[in-house]
Amino acid sequence: MLAEIITIGDEILIGQVVDTNSAWMGQKLNAAGVKIKQITSVSDDRIHILEALHAASKRADIILITGGLGPTKDDITKSTLAAYFNVEMKRDEATLEHVKQIFARNNAPMIAVNEKQADVPENCTVLLNKNGTAPGMWFEQDNKIYVSMPGVPFEMKYLMEEEVIPRIKEKFKLPFIFHQTILTAGLGESFLAKKIENIEDSLPAHIKLAYLPKLGQVRLRLSASGSDQDLLEKEVRVYTDKIVASVKEYVVAEQDVLLEKVVIDFLDQNQLTLSTAESCTGGYLAHLITQLAGSSKVYMGGAVTYSNDLKIKLLNVSPDTLNKFGAVSEETAKEMAAGALANFGTDYSIAITGIAGPGGGTPEKPVGTVWIAVVSKTGILSKKFVFGNKRVQNIERSAINALIILLNLLKQDQR
Amino acid sequence: MLAEIITIGDEILIGQVVDTNSAWMGQKLNAAGVKIKQITSVSDDRIHILEALHAASKRADIILITGGLGPTKDDITKSTLAAYFNVEMKRDEATLEHVKQIFARNNAPMIAVNEKQADVPENCTVLLNKNGTAPGMWFEQDNKIYVSMPGVPFEMKYLMEEEVIPRIKEKFKLPFIFHQTILTAGLGESFLAKKIENIEDSLPAHIKLAYLPKLGQVRLRLSASGSDQDLLEKEVRVYTDKIVASVKEYVVAEQDVLLEKVVIDFLDQNQLTLSTAESCTGGYLAHLITQLAGSSKVYMGGAVTYSNDLKIKLLNVSPDTLNKFGAVSEETAKEMAAGALANFGTDYSIAITGIAGPGGGTPEKPVGTVWIAVVSKTGILSKKFVFGNKRVQNIERSAINALIILLNLLKQDQR
Repeated sequence: MLAEIITIGDEILIGQVVDTNSAWMGQKLNAAGVKIKQITSVSDDRIHILEALHAASKRADIILITGGLGPTKDDITKSTLAAYFNVEMKRDEATLEHVKQIFARNNAPMIAVNEKQADVPENCTVLLNKNGTAPGMWFEQDNKIYVSMPGVPFEMKYLMEEEVIPRIKEKFKLPFIFHQTILTAGLGESFLAKKIENIEDSLPAHIKLAYLPKLGQVRLRLSASGSDQDLLEKEVRVYTDKIVASVKEYVVAEQDVLLEKVVIDFLDQNQLTLSTAESCTGGYLAHLITQLAGSSKVYMGGAVTYSNDLKIKLLNVSPDTLNKFGAVSEETAKEMAAGALANFGTDYSIAITGIAGPGGGTPEKPVGTVWIAVVSKTGILSKKFVFGNKRVQNIERSAINALIILLNLLKQDQR
Repeated sequence: MLAEIITIGDEILIGQVVDTNSAWMGQKLNAAGVKIKQITSVSDDRIHILEALHAASKRADIILITGGLGPTKDDITKSTLAAYFNVEMKRDEATLEHVKQIFARNNAPMIAVNEKQADVPENCTVLLNKNGTAPGMWFEQDNKIYVSMPGVPFEMKYLMEEEVIPRIKEKFKLPFIFHQTILTAGLGESFLAKKIENIEDSLPAHIKLAYLPKLGQVRLRLSASGSDQDLLEKEVRVYTDKIVASVKEYVVAEQDVLLEKVVIDFLDQNQLTLSTAESCTGGYLAHLITQLAGSSKVYMGGAVTYSNDLKIKLLNVSPDTLNKFGAVSEETAKEMAAGALANFGTDYSIAITGIAGPGGGTPEKPVGTVWIAVVSKTGILSKKFVFGNKRVQNIERSAINALIILLNLLKQDQR
């Protein structure tokens, strides 16, 4: 089953907006057993949209169209679709009622252009958009499906999850696809691949293994397709167990989840608290943790100590240590972590100190040199990294590796 | 002059990677006077790539191709381009030398597959890729330009900036395009538009005004096209001055620059220092500042005080204040800011306390309620916001608005 995505809108072509919708749709459709053949981004231009629709209908079974439905723009997607199918427009009363309710709820006056949101090509099935005023539209012609959705991500996502994917599954007999993700951290893709080479070679044709690397982590994803759901899940379980056994020390979770979420959940389940002491990461580690809902249960806070003065004042780092070993050193990292543990009264503390760049490097400590220390009441782990010369990447890698070291200390302390 | 971008690679179609390259290319090409007609993402499939090339050549004058040049993949883009142009491959000695140097510099052994990086279709002009081993390739046929580049963003960007755009400008007589950006903060798009309505209406046809809104900020961009560079710049200067005069109190900079960069530069030029005290933003404000090189000159550090205990301990917030007004209150925000100023020894301090959500809201203080206070030795400003119910957006909006308030206090203190 092949699909094509057509995004309509000048804002994507002039680079004002990055098209994140298509990647999200690609993931969801793949998980449902539909392959994306092509993604086509076209301008708000009638002829161009018509050409794209014709071309897509030759390549794909399902054509998913996003954008061009906003009330402030010319309503070009709808009228172009009516022209493509050679039909008239009709007013959809249910949509009109829905639009009226939205305006009433917001105490906003409704003008004529808003009512036009309820006009749709007469051959479509309307998909009610609970997250906005522009309806989704489902068309069937010559054994092809066409779906038009708003480009606003959370409106598109609502329609895809609640309407479009369920209808596609109902309409087409898609193979059942079962995915199992293993999140690993601390070992590179090629080294992981080497360790599980034999397992990968032994996989049957209907089970695929994908490596999805990201900042010190690799997601291993087994995808099995077939008709017998129970059998597939059992088969995948066997290979999952084999892989986990082979790379046990690097496995963070047997699901598709953020590393920082794993850390927070582990702390929460064990009623443990965390604080941070950051120099070169400048608050990014704290942000990674606190951007997740529920983090306040385990994360008490921390210090961003860019200056040496604040390292001394907030984290009890000894001026002698700073003089003798420098701010970027194992000794300073360990004192920062110990100071955070004592001053912030938590069970665990993470300290990061390094040279993010582009300035500040020396021959002995080049840009990218980072020391991380993690401390608990009973244990301490510290590690040096030498990353590259890109500031933002050095910050991101440092924070992720700090979480990996924290997980290691948590495991060690559990023993 | 019309261009089409073709991205090659299954990773975009399955949603593993978001295509950020195309938006970046769209911006750069637009600035150079080239309009993107279509963006087409296709799979690593020979027939499909050939079809996309043929279709693009009917729509556009310049076809820019990214991806499919990695050494670990089948070298499908290069061999497909050779088939498209009906030519043989040749080995490019300059590229081979360059690849050898890269391997030698990294002390890495070079194998046969790496040498193949130097093989290119014989009709191309090689564009040396200083940031990687895969060369860029420039083709001319039937008055069309084709350029193939790696999909790795920093390799593509290098080739676009150093080779492709200069060659396009040389090859085609493009109109001169002059852009002038005015960064504003603190007033919404529609209110700004109202204030400069008369100026916008008076713009000549060859000068366009675009509104680019982003998190509490709006970038106003004047774009003028023509042949006389000096005249255009003078004309745009006149309209820029008019706009700036009309919305003076919201103008942050008369260039395309990050708000946080404006803040850092202003502090640096006036030899002032900054610290932060964050609750609901959890380190994000510190991160926004410290992700910029040079921030350590003005930013000393700060505290992330998620717990009330740490607000008391690190920021001298009075337990009475917390009991009486709550952690999310003007009183607490002001005490946090004053505490940071005193304890961290800086000229300015920013404090943010709020309910990021999704939990923690009450009827009086719903999710999205945020108090921000900014303090200096001589002044204090505080402001309440009620944002929406999305955690990450609430965090981002709070941090940006805190910087806007800091700018206001900096201006006020200058008087």
